[in-house]
Amino acid sequence: MATRRFHSPGDADLAGLYRDLAAKDLQPLWELSGLLTPTPRTKAVPYRWSGKELRELGQRAGDLVPVGRGGDRRVLSLSNPGLNGSPYATATLWGAVQYLGPGETAPAHRHTPAALRFVLDGAGVWTLVNGDPLSMEAGDLILTPSWTWHEHHNPGSTPMTWFDALDLPLVEALESVFFEPGHESAAATEVRTRSLSERRYGGGPGLLPNDGAPAPAAHSPLLRYPWHATDRALDLQLADAQGNAARTGHACLRFADPTNGRDVMPTMRCQMHRYLPGHTAPAMRRTGSSLAAVFRGSGAVLLNGVRYDVAPGDLVAVPSWTSVAVIAEESVDLFTVSDAPVLEALALYREEAVPDRVTSEPAPTRRY
Amino acid sequence: MATRRFHSPGDADLAGLYRDLAAKDLQPLWELSGLLTPTPRTKAVPYRWSGKELRELGQRAGDLVPVGRGGDRRVLSLSNPGLNGSPYATATLWGAVQYLGPGETAPAHRHTPAALRFVLDGAGVWTLVNGDPLSMEAGDLILTPSWTWHEHHNPGSTPMTWFDALDLPLVEALESVFFEPGHESAAATEVRTRSLSERRYGGGPGLLPNDGAPAPAAHSPLLRYPWHATDRALDLQLADAQGNAARTGHACLRFADPTNGRDVMPTMRCQMHRYLPGHTAPAMRRTGSSLAAVFRGSGAVLLNGVRYDVAPGDLVAVPSWTSVAVIAEESVDLFTVSDAPVLEALALYREEAVPDRVTSEPAPTRRY
Amino acid sequence: MATRRFHSPGDADLAGLYRDLAAKDLQPLWELSGLLTPTPRTKAVPYRWSGKELRELGQRAGDLVPVGRGGDRRVLSLSNPGLNGSPYATATLWGAVQYLGPGETAPAHRHTPAALRFVLDGAGVWTLVNGDPLSMEAGDLILTPSWTWHEHHNPGSTPMTWFDALDLPLVEALESVFFEPGHESAAATEVRTRSLSERRYGGGPGLLPNDGAPAPAAHSPLLRYPWHATDRALDLQLADAQGNAARTGHACLRFADPTNGRDVMPTMRCQMHRYLPGHTAPAMRRTGSSLAAVFRGSGAVLLNGVRYDVAPGDLVAVPSWTSVAVIAEESVDLFTVSDAPVLEALALYREEAVPDRVTSEPAPTRRY
Amino acid sequence: MATRRFHSPGDADLAGLYRDLAAKDLQPLWELSGLLTPTPRTKAVPYRWSGKELRELGQRAGDLVPVGRGGDRRVLSLSNPGLNGSPYATATLWGAVQYLGPGETAPAHRHTPAALRFVLDGAGVWTLVNGDPLSMEAGDLILTPSWTWHEHHNPGSTPMTWFDALDLPLVEALESVFFEPGHESAAATEVRTRSLSERRYGGGPGLLPNDGAPAPAAHSPLLRYPWHATDRALDLQLADAQGNAARTGHACLRFADPTNGRDVMPTMRCQMHRYLPGHTAPAMRRTGSSLAAVFRGSGAVLLNGVRYDVAPGDLVAVPSWTSVAVIAEESVDLFTVSDAPVLEALALYREEAVPDRVTSEPAPTRRY
Repeated sequence: MATRRFHSPGDADLAGLYRDLAAKDLQPLWELSGLLTPTPRTKAVPYRWSGKELRELGQRAGDLVPVGRGGDRRVLSLSNPGLNGSPYATATLWGAVQYLGPGETAPAHRHTPAALRFVLDGAGVWTLVNGDPLSMEAGDLILTPSWTWHEHHNPGSTPMTWFDALDLPLVEALESVFFEPGHESAAATEVRTRSLSERRYGGGPGLLPNDGAPAPAAHSPLLRYPWHATDRALDLQLADAQGNAARTGHACLRFADPTNGRDVMPTMRCQMHRYLPGHTAPAMRRTGSSLAAVFRGSGAVLLNGVRYDVAPGDLVAVPSWTSVAVIAEESVDLFTVSDAPVLEALALYREEAVPDRVTSEPAPTRRY
Repeated sequence: MATRRFHSPGDADLAGLYRDLAAKDLQPLWELSGLLTPTPRTKAVPYRWSGKELRELGQRAGDLVPVGRGGDRRVLSLSNPGLNGSPYATATLWGAVQYLGPGETAPAHRHTPAALRFVLDGAGVWTLVNGDPLSMEAGDLILTPSWTWHEHHNPGSTPMTWFDALDLPLVEALESVFFEPGHESAAATEVRTRSLSERRYGGGPGLLPNDGAPAPAAHSPLLRYPWHATDRALDLQLADAQGNAARTGHACLRFADPTNGRDVMPTMRCQMHRYLPGHTAPAMRRTGSSLAAVFRGSGAVLLNGVRYDVAPGDLVAVPSWTSVAVIAEESVDLFTVSDAPVLEALALYREEAVPDRVTSEPAPTRRY
Repeated sequence: MATRRFHSPGDADLAGLYRDLAAKDLQPLWELSGLLTPTPRTKAVPYRWSGKELRELGQRAGDLVPVGRGGDRRVLSLSNPGLNGSPYATATLWGAVQYLGPGETAPAHRHTPAALRFVLDGAGVWTLVNGDPLSMEAGDLILTPSWTWHEHHNPGSTPMTWFDALDLPLVEALESVFFEPGHESAAATEVRTRSLSERRYGGGPGLLPNDGAPAPAAHSPLLRYPWHATDRALDLQLADAQGNAARTGHACLRFADPTNGRDVMPTMRCQMHRYLPGHTAPAMRRTGSSLAAVFRGSGAVLLNGVRYDVAPGDLVAVPSWTSVAVIAEESVDLFTVSDAPVLEALALYREEAVPDRVTSEPAPTRRY
Repeated sequence: MATRRFHSPGDADLAGLYRDLAAKDLQPLWELSGLLTPTPRTKAVPYRWSGKELRELGQRAGDLVPVGRGGDRRVLSLSNPGLNGSPYATATLWGAVQYLGPGETAPAHRHTPAALRFVLDGAGVWTLVNGDPLSMEAGDLILTPSWTWHEHHNPGSTPMTWFDALDLPLVEALESVFFEPGHESAAATEVRTRSLSERRYGGGPGLLPNDGAPAPAAHSPLLRYPWHATDRALDLQLADAQGNAARTGHACLRFADPTNGRDVMPTMRCQMHRYLPGHTAPAMRRTGSSLAAVFRGSGAVLLNGVRYDVAPGDLVAVPSWTSVAVIAEESVDLFTVSDAPVLEALALYREEAVPDRVTSEPAPTRRY
């Protein structure tokens, strides 16, 4: 097979071939490099945004910019320094903080990118999803799934800042973004004390309504996961001396569709972690990216061995195949959202424990 | 096709054929009748057992018979009058009351027929399932799935009577009964305050543990459904003016595997109903059979239009395609177990609303 | 716990209890025996019917009895000697031979018990399933699933005898038999050369039609599995030196729904085996029952170690947990139908290889 | 809510806010535009590459460039003019022609991006997938799924050009590319006449091997779909006067995993279309992108109403939400590969028929 003879690469023939290929919108594979790498290559970099700064900047935006000005939302989007100025936090995830002042309303719209809200602080705001009012309080997870109408109301006297995550970069990569603005109809000004969603699906673990066939949906019919239940479930895990959580000092919940146990939405996995001081959970790396929001506690996150101190409200971007470990100085409650369901559905999910490479240096303020 | 001529049926040839068929263990279909009926034919009859009598007879058995005497359990099994003396409540379900006195233990064993316990009264008894202690209190549903080790302990000073349901007639019809007695090892005398099962899966709706892959199982990993959650979930359904339950005055929960939403065990569906006085839920009939246990309230059950007054502790057998309606004089809480998952898995499930045929006569004391 | 004192069993109190229990349709578990056996207990016995006798008796029935006389079919049903005169072959399966003479038609009807036909001999008969004509030739498997209209036509000049299997005993045990006779409309007298079912789903392995969403169904949309494909697929398995079939001398196919790989119907698994002389497939036993039809070849079947010589057309009943081995004197093609999908759906399936206990004695002519 | 007063947008405060946001790697959503578009926006453009030119350029590359030179393959990749010089055909799909000369071997490697080969012409080449040799002949579809070892051998005397499709852009967007080169071991020089894959799974529709549990895999275990079966299945569809295909003159097959009916690989759907002259299949548009390879026939493809004449070997790129219609001057056989399984898994799939906007103008040679 090696007996055929080829022209040397500098030939005029070869140059002519390359010229003709380009003219025909073709490229020679053998001149391309870096297409197939031994392990994933990422453009996004590991990064942390300060909660303190996010709150301050959100407040300043609240003072200066009306909520309705462009995009219907007063949102500060995380712009990963590796992504050349794009407003995306990772390759597949949009992350942001949203600020809603007293008396303000973010009007209804819907879009195919799915969204979720994790409340970092406060209470008294309501998100309406297809008209069903979901109370937003600190620690709550609120879903606004793909193509559902949603709007936010703050009828109270204090502003709220929360964490938004969307699968927008993914849906854009799949060329599947649809958007529709809501009607100008007056939004509901009074809201019920509990959503229909919670009345039907929030009664208790393994207790499902039986009144006829549910409308099949791609997402969880339970749209609010209140903090008090999440908090108690973490405690329960840790309270059993025989359990894995108690053994390692690391409790972890996956937020699930109560009707089938699948992830709450087909593109995003939500989890709540509680790391006790001295826990022994190993550093892990996974295909696909994630965002973490520090809810309570303090300590540090190690990303590929680089230490980032964290405090409540901090947001962290974790690109694919980046090793992640958590150091808990006091008990750390960490909310994470990832594209793991996508990777799993496409049989591309891999994870592995990695030896920790802790450095004593602080993280660079900007790593690119 | 009608041109062929056949011998007349009285022929000696025909008699000879029938004789020869019998000798060869064959039967002529055309002489069989009743094989394929327009609608299901049942041997079991609609029936009600009195809770008051069941409690009294359980107590008498407790006074007279040690728990260990035969079958490891002090159980009074429902013997449907239509089933010719068999100890079965319906064609596919075993029903019984079990009585456990103060200080008594029903020793460990396991069997392929799956069982569940619904507690009619009392508190303080523990069922251990594969060593995990499940507290039994009034209104609790306790699972002891197929081939799990299980034993019952009453460390307290008051007896308990509970409702047992098994799929034994079905598993026997499928010739798949296996049984294994437990070892004589001393049973655990102290029990934890909460089962490992509940610590891992009972934290809240849609909150699943995330510590590694769960062992795949045919049944729910949540083995206890405590009454307080069931009660609250029924109330939540009824509290929403827009919901179906509030509209009809009939709340209904299906007990589900929290990891996949399927029925708690592959052969039995468990449901809890709350019927308010004046509710408008229609009479229904379904393929497959069920048992109902009256937990609270009073009223009547109409089976094929025949009225059976019911009070707490009453047990009711509902054969296939029998119309069932409930009359609530005061709010009735009704636990039901059925073979619906079997019928659904085999594509044999049918249900329909039927016009009520309420009679003013009381039910016959014995209908066969 | 052993400190309580109980009355001795002969007491008048105990007799009184038993009397009162009986009066209330209750039975004391501790006096019942044989409910929970270490391994499955079967009433049906291992048995073989002679193909030669079945053909002769079918022919005699064809001469004496019109096809329309009772049950719409001229069917000789296998009556397992262990089942006390019931016309069932095993606990869950009906088996029979059906004889259709030249020019005869078995009229349309439908029923919830599902049926299949395996053609032992001949050609030229058509089964219409919901109007779609399926050609019946030797070795073909024809499905007439639950609640589908079906009728049989023999437009030719030679009679045909085929093997029928139904899940009737199972559906009766589940109290779910529905039946509906067909209309008197003239049946189609001309049939197409290939069914619509085969045109849509029979093109080739892994080639599915793409014209819109298929109607969801509990059974395979492919209703005929022609012998030429089955035969070739068995040969292909055996032709690969690296494969398991070639290694053991035992090829086995499972007939599957081409759209999802599941069994052809939810209650019955169909398989075709080819055993070469000298094969090394072990004796196996399984929960649930099966029927086998010898299509080609000769040898013997060992049921719990008892030898039954077999020849083409022989039918064999295999109760639950009965060890089965095949001895091939010449290559044996064996069609089997079992309730395995039922056992699997209910998590009751077990199987194991068993040491062969071959005896030199012939089987008793009747084993009960 | 409109009572709050905000600074005017030109304020120094606002400029300061924007400066501080940028310094903290944040972006104000309200200044971003085009993120959420009413319908999908694509960068890739509809495009056609000429089969005649691809064959000629492949031959020239074969004369000039050794197969082993970079990337292990002699591949000309389609570079969509809208994608700024990237070597990708659409947002999620890589398309290419590969040329393998007589006596040449493309050595073994594996990668997480999945690939398939559709043979445009010729015969006699073998692709080994995990050592199993798959014959490549005109019209065959060959799978080399994610992370399977694969190599190509041309032991004959004529070159072959085939169509390659990979999900590389998608897997890169998900940051999940892994690659591993094969060992230098001598490749198999003799190949069997039929792959083990086909012996086990290629016997016939609905005929599956039964020898033990299959290894679970994310992709079809059938790795070759030979043209003769595809061709026959298309004919069968068209031959039934009652069927949809005959009615519209458009037959369409989906290549499926024979064990579960799912798409052959989790990221790519493969289909074969036969359009008869005068067919009435409407123009369709769908979310997600696809590539089409003209196998036989001639006519035109209308992309958003723009006409592209097509001939055998032509390749066509169809971005998301682009309307596609086919004009068949003679019967056109069209192979298509799309990312539809991805869109479906993520609940982002939409499709709709669109009114045709046929123009009389030829397509621009370059549309950007």
